[in-house]
Amino acid sequence: MTGSSSRANANEASLLRVFTIPESDESTLSRIEKQMSEDLNGFLEQQIVAVQKPLSEIEQDFADSCIPEEPMWVSDYSDKILDTLIAHSVHTSSPRFIGHMTSALPYFLLPLSKMMVGLNQNLVKVETSKAFTPMERQVVGMLHNLVYQRDAAFYDQWMHNVDGTVGAFCSGGTVANMTALWAARNARFSAEGDFAGIDQEGIFAALKHYQYDGIAVVTSTRGHYSLSKAADLLGIGRRSFVAVDVDENNRIRVDELARTCRELADNNICILAIMGVAGTTETGNVDPLDEIATIAEQYGAHFHVDAAWGGATLLSSQYRGLMRGIERADSVTIDAHKQLYVPIGAGMVLFKDPQISTAIEHHAKYILREGSKDIGVHTLEGSRPGMAMLVHSCLSIIGRQGYELLIDKSLANARYFAELIRQDEDFELISEPELCLLTYRYVPSHIKRFLEGASEEVRAHINGLLNVLTRMIQKTQREQGKSFVSRTMLTPAAYNGADIVVFRVVLANPLTTPEILRDVLIEQKAIARQQLESLAPIEALVNGG
Amino acid sequence: MTGSSSRANANEASLLRVFTIPESDESTLSRIEKQMSEDLNGFLEQQIVAVQKPLSEIEQDFADSCIPEEPMWVSDYSDKILDTLIAHSVHTSSPRFIGHMTSALPYFLLPLSKMMVGLNQNLVKVETSKAFTPMERQVVGMLHNLVYQRDAAFYDQWMHNVDGTVGAFCSGGTVANMTALWAARNARFSAEGDFAGIDQEGIFAALKHYQYDGIAVVTSTRGHYSLSKAADLLGIGRRSFVAVDVDENNRIRVDELARTCRELADNNICILAIMGVAGTTETGNVDPLDEIATIAEQYGAHFHVDAAWGGATLLSSQYRGLMRGIERADSVTIDAHKQLYVPIGAGMVLFKDPQISTAIEHHAKYILREGSKDIGVHTLEGSRPGMAMLVHSCLSIIGRQGYELLIDKSLANARYFAELIRQDEDFELISEPELCLLTYRYVPSHIKRFLEGASEEVRAHINGLLNVLTRMIQKTQREQGKSFVSRTMLTPAAYNGADIVVFRVVLANPLTTPEILRDVLIEQKAIARQQLESLAPIEALVNGG
Repeated sequence: MTGSSSRANANEASLLRVFTIPESDESTLSRIEKQMSEDLNGFLEQQIVAVQKPLSEIEQDFADSCIPEEPMWVSDYSDKILDTLIAHSVHTSSPRFIGHMTSALPYFLLPLSKMMVGLNQNLVKVETSKAFTPMERQVVGMLHNLVYQRDAAFYDQWMHNVDGTVGAFCSGGTVANMTALWAARNARFSAEGDFAGIDQEGIFAALKHYQYDGIAVVTSTRGHYSLSKAADLLGIGRRSFVAVDVDENNRIRVDELARTCRELADNNICILAIMGVAGTTETGNVDPLDEIATIAEQYGAHFHVDAAWGGATLLSSQYRGLMRGIERADSVTIDAHKQLYVPIGAGMVLFKDPQISTAIEHHAKYILREGSKDIGVHTLEGSRPGMAMLVHSCLSIIGRQGYELLIDKSLANARYFAELIRQDEDFELISEPELCLLTYRYVPSHIKRFLEGASEEVRAHINGLLNVLTRMIQKTQREQGKSFVSRTMLTPAAYNGADIVVFRVVLANPLTTPEILRDVLIEQKAIARQQLESLAPIEALVNGG
Repeated sequence: MTGSSSRANANEASLLRVFTIPESDESTLSRIEKQMSEDLNGFLEQQIVAVQKPLSEIEQDFADSCIPEEPMWVSDYSDKILDTLIAHSVHTSSPRFIGHMTSALPYFLLPLSKMMVGLNQNLVKVETSKAFTPMERQVVGMLHNLVYQRDAAFYDQWMHNVDGTVGAFCSGGTVANMTALWAARNARFSAEGDFAGIDQEGIFAALKHYQYDGIAVVTSTRGHYSLSKAADLLGIGRRSFVAVDVDENNRIRVDELARTCRELADNNICILAIMGVAGTTETGNVDPLDEIATIAEQYGAHFHVDAAWGGATLLSSQYRGLMRGIERADSVTIDAHKQLYVPIGAGMVLFKDPQISTAIEHHAKYILREGSKDIGVHTLEGSRPGMAMLVHSCLSIIGRQGYELLIDKSLANARYFAELIRQDEDFELISEPELCLLTYRYVPSHIKRFLEGASEEVRAHINGLLNVLTRMIQKTQREQGKSFVSRTMLTPAAYNGADIVVFRVVLANPLTTPEILRDVLIEQKAIARQQLESLAPIEALVNGG
């Protein structure tokens, strides 16, 4: 349905054209494609509206619940989504978008993505993926090697093995974490005597057979929400998800972890898994993995490390040590669509011992037959695209050395920004950047000084008001569309466990410059001064006191 | 890292180029892209090797488990994957590839996919997707409307509602089926009195509270393997997955279903869900959905329909009736990457009552806050790409009428092929095409005649030998690389429950011509005549008898 007139009746000849005749170079869609290919950032800056429209207004363009009856010309469709969809999307690759874990992408991924889609391989089975199967296994193997550094003989034996897998590719960290916990659960409650295994008989029978009074999954209060979601999904229950307090650096308190485990064991609760976090989503801190590993061993618990975001740090010789102990984990989650600079939709779970993957193995008569190398035998998902190709290309083209430069640059950027915040008397650094993530808030210097001498009660009151202010600044800055930081709520030890709303910044975009970082703070100050409604009650208190 | 020399040392300047400088028009990658864009089929036919290499040989190219230390030029990488990956991938969009559910794609999806990747939106939350959030909700709403045909007021209320969703987009039918069963489980064992709900307390506590002796999920023996995988994942157990016999048309036997349910209820087993199949993966048949709905109502069971493959039939006025009763399902799975002609990675689960989605709702402090329209609140997956855009474009550009033409053409093709098989005395049609899927096998006419008069024992023996032959023909045809049909094993009623290996054909590619279908049979016959090792013992029996 290429052409310029606005409507076309469905007829077979014109319909088959969309499958057989490519877009002409002069078509609207080709022009858009050319612009994006030549200058993605320029295209997005030009197309995405600067001042944001409220979501409720955007929804008006997507209000019709009927599948359009008649076909539409590709050109008309392209014009339409340029105005309604692209114009109101988020410029996630902008160097000024430093609020989330998405970043700029290497240019070569654009044509490669098109290639991936054009090939339309389905990774569930060899019959619909052929070379994509060994390619994906290699990508997972390379990441396994990055974490576990086993010898060549290990990878020769396991990387392309039928009887197990060193890991599984999936759409993202959430599915990776679920897959890890699923494997851990099934391996722990495996067949024994009359009991056919939890995969066959379910949790109810498993607990009865193994005579436990319950199951627990332990992590810190900073663990990602996908972990408790996994506990729900897997039938363990969110309450079985035990959150241990963190220290002043947002790392799990090992003494508390040990105490919790002892208590659970005393109460005949099976400690199914302990989940370490290597790069918490909110503050970017890394749990003491080595010490957690020792406790996990003591209780025979599966040790999982959620390194969805921080795992890429292993590529830097200088910072690899921050992950010490990760090689003792039974399973590790790493997202390629975070610090490996791959588009959204690429996560991995890695298994220290490939044989644990047999705990979640499944077969069917028409595919995934016994003895096949079909990857779908060991994945939570079924049909899956060839995203691993994009990871493969980045690992090959950027190389370990290239990633090292990127990681080191991100951490240097974060340290620079932390220094900027510390030097500005109107800001307060809440969490130091251990990796390239930090949190802070805006507190004018005179309020800071007042807080120091204030009573606990007054401090709590002012912190509450500052929370409102922080929220308003973040929201206004986002709506102004020049730059974006995110926000979250922490309970820092230094604030006696009070809820503190903070700005959250992730500095993984290699194109983010010191100038941009300075601008972010300048803009926030300017917005703050206009937030009279939020500021007035604070000033009243300060002046009244 | 554009250029032509073979290696580059990692340095920041050249590294940043991959993020800032697009590929030049003359680069290898650009040339590949141009060829694909102008003639995808031609490119693939030229690049993919005709005679397949064994997987073990392909693995040699993906044997290194180390992340490459040094960066690589994009051009060198492109040359390399052209030879090692593309050359040994599967031409899934070929009109001669009629063995699986992947098909040709409309051309406009290639530039649109690039746009989707360049935008790199993350649909988990509005902050990283903005207009993509209402766009995705609209796509899910349109499919909901296709199935349930509720009035405009319903969609006005629910399509963009915070308090629930009419469905969830996901990477594929497997995750969709899991999401449906998860919602059903959590809704059935909701909070009551002291019991905080299964999401909180898990299955063990849920069964104790509700005083059931077990849980069952019921489907036919033709149900997709993802359903029992879901039972495993959700902690219910594969044994709780009760498979009911099918009739001679591979549809669930309603009398057997009723009997099974009565028995389960008598044994104090909770019938959590009954799963109807609308387009079985192996034979393409549709369960009597209306009758299943009545039984599900009787037992208060959640009624789910797995229409991952067949759901698109609803777009055809002529064949919509085949799905009668689907509108009574509590949830429905539809894959856009099957008969909606979207690339792999696009599935949906639809909920009749949007409020059931609250049973799997989850929040976090930094995203997915209460009251937000973040789609991640109701999805199994976390971070997800903007694939819905590709579905949106297909629904808009092809339109309902266009899809109707495609669906009708597929079914006509299947009926034509069935007729070809019936008219050829050396083939045997095993399952009639209810939708565009059929199964058959090769049985030379003299063997057919011999079988008619043979004893039960001899028949069983010959069928076993024919199974070997069918496997060999399918494998050889695949390896010859000209065309591809898949195979599976059925137990047709007409063969007294014997295992019969069959060719399986899916005719959804609109570019598949009658000539191609005739060629497939001609090639199979030619291959069969060369399978002397498989044929000899059959001929010996026939001649000896």
